[in-house]
Amino acid sequence: MDAYKAIITRRAVREFEQKPIPEDALHRILQAGRMSGSSKNTQPWAFIVIREQATRQALSKCGDFAQHLLGAPLVIAVVFDPQYYRGEFDSGRAVQNMMLAAWADGIGSCIASMHREEDARNALGVPHSLRLQHVISFGYPVYEADGTVKRSSPLRGRKAMDEIVRQEKW
Amino acid sequence: MDAYKAIITRRAVREFEQKPIPEDALHRILQAGRMSGSSKNTQPWAFIVIREQATRQALSKCGDFAQHLLGAPLVIAVVFDPQYYRGEFDSGRAVQNMMLAAWADGIGSCIASMHREEDARNALGVPHSLRLQHVISFGYPVYEADGTVKRSSPLRGRKAMDEIVRQEKW
Repeated sequence: MDAYKAIITRRAVREFEQKPIPEDALHRILQAGRMSGSSKNTQPWAFIVIREQATRQALSKCGDFAQHLLGAPLVIAVVFDPQYYRGEFDSGRAVQNMMLAAWADGIGSCIASMHREEDARNALGVPHSLRLQHVISFGYPVYEADGTVKRSSPLRGRKAMDEIVRQEKW
Repeated sequence: MDAYKAIITRRAVREFEQKPIPEDALHRILQAGRMSGSSKNTQPWAFIVIREQATRQALSKCGDFAQHLLGAPLVIAVVFDPQYYRGEFDSGRAVQNMMLAAWADGIGSCIASMHREEDARNALGVPHSLRLQHVISFGYPVYEADGTVKRSSPLRGRKAMDEIVRQEKW
């Protein structure tokens, strides 16, 4: 898929086909996260690949809007070390890379925020010194009869360009 | 450019041709940031498009490694509102989108961290309640005679896959 098209067309997908993610697609997703840039190349992240249903169920209870983890054939938890400068920002960059690489392979994704982060760390055995803010669902989208991606929530708009862009100064 | 290729090949570029960024490429960069996803679709960001030399010079003094802003034909400052949940993480997602859209058009980019964020806010007139952590250089790369992108710092490697990926649990 064309890069700009992937960037512009990607939307959160929360309902997935019960079809496993092939190993080569998983490799591309992880490689996209791995190759992301980071402040002073610190690469503050680790990615936990999760498929077990009991683990997805436990994680689905650690976020307020994390139900989509239950139906996802693949889940990746993103851990970062807060001792590194810009670890949260850089994790956002890596996650965007992973979700775009997935989308280019026809795979949808949705981020679940871990509002009860300590519970999420306990579910995965992640040390308390590390952050576990986000867990991501991946899977092939369910499509409607008209060929559009099935959505559990309405397609949400974006602010107008002139609302978010300024010239030269604030 | 193919999406996965753009994701995998993108590297920080700090030296730029003195050639302006066309308006249609700038539009794609901003559109890529605008269309990025965010927690509960809060879209916590604003983008300040900067070309004036005096402003780039002022910003170059607000970060420890921000000299590349001096030679960039286009600079975009990324502002976010910290009252929104995950504003820093979501800004990382939007910035990655923008840099990938640029790279797909043959335009390089480099992030400058604003280590003296208050000075950066003052330079742009950004309210103190908002964050201004990152300013990004954009421009066409300078190429070496052998066709590779000219680098002021060596190409930096990435950790091995098995160092950053775990299965099922930490």
